Amino acid sequence: MKILLKNATLLPEYGYGSRRVSVLVKDKKIAGITEQPPEAPADEVIDCAGNLLIPAFYNAHCHAAMTLFRGYGEDLPLQRWLEEKIFPAEERLTFRSVYHASMLAIAEMLRAGIASFSDMYMFEDAVAEAVLASGIKANLSRSLVSFDPDGDIAREPRMIEALRLAEWYHGYDDGRILVDFSLHAEYTNVPRACAYVAEVAGRFHTGMQIHLSETEKEHRECIARWGKTPTAFFRDTGVLENPTCAAHGVWLTDEDIAVLAEKKASVAHNPVSNLKLGSGVMPLGKLLNAGVNVALGTDGAASNNRLDILRELQTAALIHKGVNRDPSLAPARVLFALATRGGALAQRREDCGRIGVGCRADLVLIDRSPLHNLPCYDDYAMLAYSAETADVRMTMVDGRILYRNGEYTSIDEERLRYDCRETFAHYFE
Amino acid sequence: MKILLKNATLLPEYGYGSRRVSVLVKDKKIAGITEQPPEAPADEVIDCAGNLLIPAFYNAHCHAAMTLFRGYGEDLPLQRWLEEKIFPAEERLTFRSVYHASMLAIAEMLRAGIASFSDMYMFEDAVAEAVLASGIKANLSRSLVSFDPDGDIAREPRMIEALRLAEWYHGYDDGRILVDFSLHAEYTNVPRACAYVAEVAGRFHTGMQIHLSETEKEHRECIARWGKTPTAFFRDTGVLENPTCAAHGVWLTDEDIAVLAEKKASVAHNPVSNLKLGSGVMPLGKLLNAGVNVALGTDGAASNNRLDILRELQTAALIHKGVNRDPSLAPARVLFALATRGGALAQRREDCGRIGVGCRADLVLIDRSPLHNLPCYDDYAMLAYSAETADVRMTMVDGRILYRNGEYTSIDEERLRYDCRETFAHYFE
Repeated sequence: MKILLKNATLLPEYGYGSRRVSVLVKDKKIAGITEQPPEAPADEVIDCAGNLLIPAFYNAHCHAAMTLFRGYGEDLPLQRWLEEKIFPAEERLTFRSVYHASMLAIAEMLRAGIASFSDMYMFEDAVAEAVLASGIKANLSRSLVSFDPDGDIAREPRMIEALRLAEWYHGYDDGRILVDFSLHAEYTNVPRACAYVAEVAGRFHTGMQIHLSETEKEHRECIARWGKTPTAFFRDTGVLENPTCAAHGVWLTDEDIAVLAEKKASVAHNPVSNLKLGSGVMPLGKLLNAGVNVALGTDGAASNNRLDILRELQTAALIHKGVNRDPSLAPARVLFALATRGGALAQRREDCGRIGVGCRADLVLIDRSPLHNLPCYDDYAMLAYSAETADVRMTMVDGRILYRNGEYTSIDEERLRYDCRETFAHYFE
Repeated sequence: MKILLKNATLLPEYGYGSRRVSVLVKDKKIAGITEQPPEAPADEVIDCAGNLLIPAFYNAHCHAAMTLFRGYGEDLPLQRWLEEKIFPAEERLTFRSVYHASMLAIAEMLRAGIASFSDMYMFEDAVAEAVLASGIKANLSRSLVSFDPDGDIAREPRMIEALRLAEWYHGYDDGRILVDFSLHAEYTNVPRACAYVAEVAGRFHTGMQIHLSETEKEHRECIARWGKTPTAFFRDTGVLENPTCAAHGVWLTDEDIAVLAEKKASVAHNPVSNLKLGSGVMPLGKLLNAGVNVALGTDGAASNNRLDILRELQTAALIHKGVNRDPSLAPARVLFALATRGGALAQRREDCGRIGVGCRADLVLIDRSPLHNLPCYDDYAMLAYSAETADVRMTMVDGRILYRNGEYTSIDEERLRYDCRETFAHYFE
């Protein structure tokens, strides 16, 4: 299968200035970037005139099935929200509700130009089936919660699920699904369990997903409990020996940041969720200066309420300038790199998140022509400050067009609406 | 002219629960709200099924023609941005470029559900003509800048322009245009000039627009210069005796807030611009607790880069929670009131910003059906956390439908694109 994207405008970093180029996609990869369209015929030719061709976005932290709880229990203090609303609702989840809620999440993400997401949740095999059916990519994980210092971790139901998930799905469809291991957080796990899971992840040669220093309370209580920060806790239990993507990192200390840099961990920055839940603003500049790979994440739709990396990029572009009172911070171009390449690296997808020959063809077209994008002096500024999610015209994942001009090619939207209505309507009765 | 909006879902504050109602618009006003459609025929019947019917948004602070500078000179420190980019570019503005740039702004605002905007800029008669041609409402002002303590203020070109604007346009088309008087800011005006303009505004029985305590530098330098804050400066020069809409208010003290409450001034909160320019986060909670009327504004597209009150609402819903670390702050319902009724009151449009019999028919339909709005447990949460500007299906101003399903009824979009291209293309050469 060959798809030719002609008359494409690339961002300045690709060195084509304002010239239009042709990008040839062959099977899953970018096979050529040329100023003139190649002479050999393609199976499909897409005229990209008026659009910007960018690498797709990567969502480095998500709980996809929480779309089911979008807008449920708003504007409450964190503990009441969790204890009165979210935890009781999660008790009632089933394979089927997670499947449909995940498919709803995937449809939203594809429309927003997202090619891949990292997920931590329950019934993760249902998420995997939604990923396989939809064509999106994902790094899936079932996170361990272990409070018993003497418990038999290998027999914990969550651990059994995590292992089964890895055995079934890790590397599936040429790496479209990667399975990570996961510890929910420091405050939900005893050290023995962390060491155990770290060892298992090493055995599978895969990565780890953790929540890290999201709230001040978590960060302080960890220090009170163990005499060290959550980052030091995970370092000392061996977790960071595996490639780790740590979500949030709002309360990281300078020493934590040095540890994360040394261990080559990634941090998933979730600006919308951190603001909405009142967690605070993470030290983005310090992380970038230390050389830590930073990616963007949405967290779940219950605390966001969107699964939209462009929105995270745009929120990040504002918040760091405003809170640090410096308009030169968090420039558009840097945040764009986090939203694309940073996310791909956080998922250990080295051949993703860039436009180059040999890279995976995870590509997005952004319409530059809506009035709200005019005039356009700077495409990075357009992306960071004026573009809308609705300007996404096409999302291609591994060379397959999954969304174009309002239509999904792999998801039956009417069926999805029906399934969601049937599954969700009676959920809270 | 009678337009019937049937099967409309209203927000809970209107007391219709989840029942669908019919809203009858007769000429410029809402003539009836009934559970059953009225029997008398209407000239047009619009089926609102699947949509939420809300009062339109009001943009309480704008420099519309700055769409011309959207994305021009991004991510620079404030002084360099102003001195190297914006001020030289503004020197070259003409009536024609301001007209076309304002029309571009108006088109963007109508698509975003905005019925009215407050404007401070130059060539304001060009803005007025764009307002008249497009059908939107506006409170227009030409702001004074006066550095000479002995100058003849009445002969200042800007003062002459402001007076001419008021004489020509104040109250035009049944109040569709209101002309306000304006002082750019404390740091750009001597006290004598402030007193003079305040007196003129009183003579016209109209309002004032000012910039107030936007940056810490402005606030501190005012105290160094006059031994008082900008708010006290404007109080003592008599400005606040007129109905005043003060933009920004980021650095207001508790005393300032008490003064603004006592003088019944409104504050236009511009969260996106304040973040992007690194100005800081305004004390929203204190203003609301003191009973100050707060509205939302976009500021100009050079520092935003959008003219979109829904985006301001959504940004405000995040930033106050995040910076104050309390997720119960700035609830969706309160911010919605600021974006609608708060803006109407800031513009002294008492019969606007609500849905009620006798109110002006400034109405917007929001599509609840896109996947990113599902499920919908709470319409306020949908508006504040998940809806997109592209979900606006219709914008009606004074009973006229100006935008519907991607089409403008009063603006020729192709002509606008042509005019903008011709006017903007060679602007920076």
